[in-house]
Amino acid sequence: MILVTNDDGYKAKGLKKLIEIANEFGEVVVIAANESQSARSHAITIKDPIKYKVANNGLANYIIKGTPVDGVKLAICSLLDRKPDLILSGINHGTNSSSSVVYSGTMAAALEGAIHGVPSIGFSLLDYHPDADFEPATNYIKQLISNVLASGLPQGTCLNVNIPIEKAEAIKGIRICRQSNGYWIEKFDTREDPRGSKYSWLTGKFVDREPESEDTDEWALRNNYISVVPVKTDLTAHDMIQQIKHWEKESESNEKKQI
Amino acid sequence: MILVTNDDGYKAKGLKKLIEIANEFGEVVVIAANESQSARSHAITIKDPIKYKVANNGLANYIIKGTPVDGVKLAICSLLDRKPDLILSGINHGTNSSSSVVYSGTMAAALEGAIHGVPSIGFSLLDYHPDADFEPATNYIKQLISNVLASGLPQGTCLNVNIPIEKAEAIKGIRICRQSNGYWIEKFDTREDPRGSKYSWLTGKFVDREPESEDTDEWALRNNYISVVPVKTDLTAHDMIQQIKHWEKESESNEKKQI
Repeated sequence: MILVTNDDGYKAKGLKKLIEIANEFGEVVVIAANESQSARSHAITIKDPIKYKVANNGLANYIIKGTPVDGVKLAICSLLDRKPDLILSGINHGTNSSSSVVYSGTMAAALEGAIHGVPSIGFSLLDYHPDADFEPATNYIKQLISNVLASGLPQGTCLNVNIPIEKAEAIKGIRICRQSNGYWIEKFDTREDPRGSKYSWLTGKFVDREPESEDTDEWALRNNYISVVPVKTDLTAHDMIQQIKHWEKESESNEKKQI
Repeated sequence: MILVTNDDGYKAKGLKKLIEIANEFGEVVVIAANESQSARSHAITIKDPIKYKVANNGLANYIIKGTPVDGVKLAICSLLDRKPDLILSGINHGTNSSSSVVYSGTMAAALEGAIHGVPSIGFSLLDYHPDADFEPATNYIKQLISNVLASGLPQGTCLNVNIPIEKAEAIKGIRICRQSNGYWIEKFDTREDPRGSKYSWLTGKFVDREPESEDTDEWALRNNYISVVPVKTDLTAHDMIQQIKHWEKESESNEKKQI
């Protein structure tokens, strides 16, 4: 059974496309939010209850008032009678490459699947338009789903797939990449409301710190490839552990100080 | 200049304690939300404007209506006249060890700092109580701030520090660890409102998948150590890239299919 979800809400065109593709691979269950949950990242709802309804309206089986991660948790731990074989998230309207992975609700749903040991893929098209054209990438998406169904993914790892805005014939293929080192410079458009309170609109511009590197997702996308980054839920900077290990020794003197 | 922030809101006791400690190290600027932003993860506010006010009320310099990451972005990209030398986030009321790092607003603020190349530390005490006792860890927190100010942290890396609930004399010191492989099993407490709509309260229970491993944060905390995990913003599962590299070759046939 394949669980399909997204962060743009149950009416999004990208979700419809992903359901259509998923249907070719087996039984599909769809859980999605009642409205857009973009940039909600790995947020979960803990102060309020999560509301949901059984919809079965051809667009989704379950519609929730909650975040993408709420939806995956609710499906795995409560609604479904067994663990899904695969989680597909998206297709997102807009990029989730490079450091955008950490802000993304689409990828958070996939990461939550990976935490639970379910092979999971997040798909994003570099087009924010509600009527974006998801058709050109169809065969590549099918290939990736086949690959993951055939070989699985280790617990704690999922895939971040980004698709350039190109016609099918211009897409050069798939590149297995690493996440580029980039960031968003935010320009805050700050205004004053009629009562004198300040408010700011967030309007970012992405900066790739390593535009020359050819093994990154940003390079792949700029060169008309579909980027596939294997992403993991272990955030440890393993190579740094030895570098700061001597801090342990120093802390012994604190212990004495405090006794 | 040290930027201090948190996810429990500007009135939280843990924030007050962190400001008090930070004041010993230099000029401090505080930005915090008007109310709790726990479990908001790396969410950012894009559909609505971010509201903020200059407070300078002894508790915070800026109070925002937004997420912890909104606050860091707003401070770095708009409010501050220069990049801070250090970002301190917390002290959180509650754990952010193991996989909880991905749900945490406290750690998202630190990760956002790391993305921008500012050495950043997130502190969390394993006590959710509003009146939790942050005193016992004081000297350890000071040591870690000194260490980071002295040696810096590489761009893209920050520290996830968790503190056990113990008296000062029972804390055994600091352990540099890796993130334990764990997850939350959610029990949804599902109810029906008077109009027949369903709603569920999320009530999770943490499971450590590797309780025997002695190099993890969970082990350190169970054994009365303060856990320090170096955490990075590069989520790539680097060791997997070679394993699935052959998918690139396969994708060439898709290209032909589509032309």
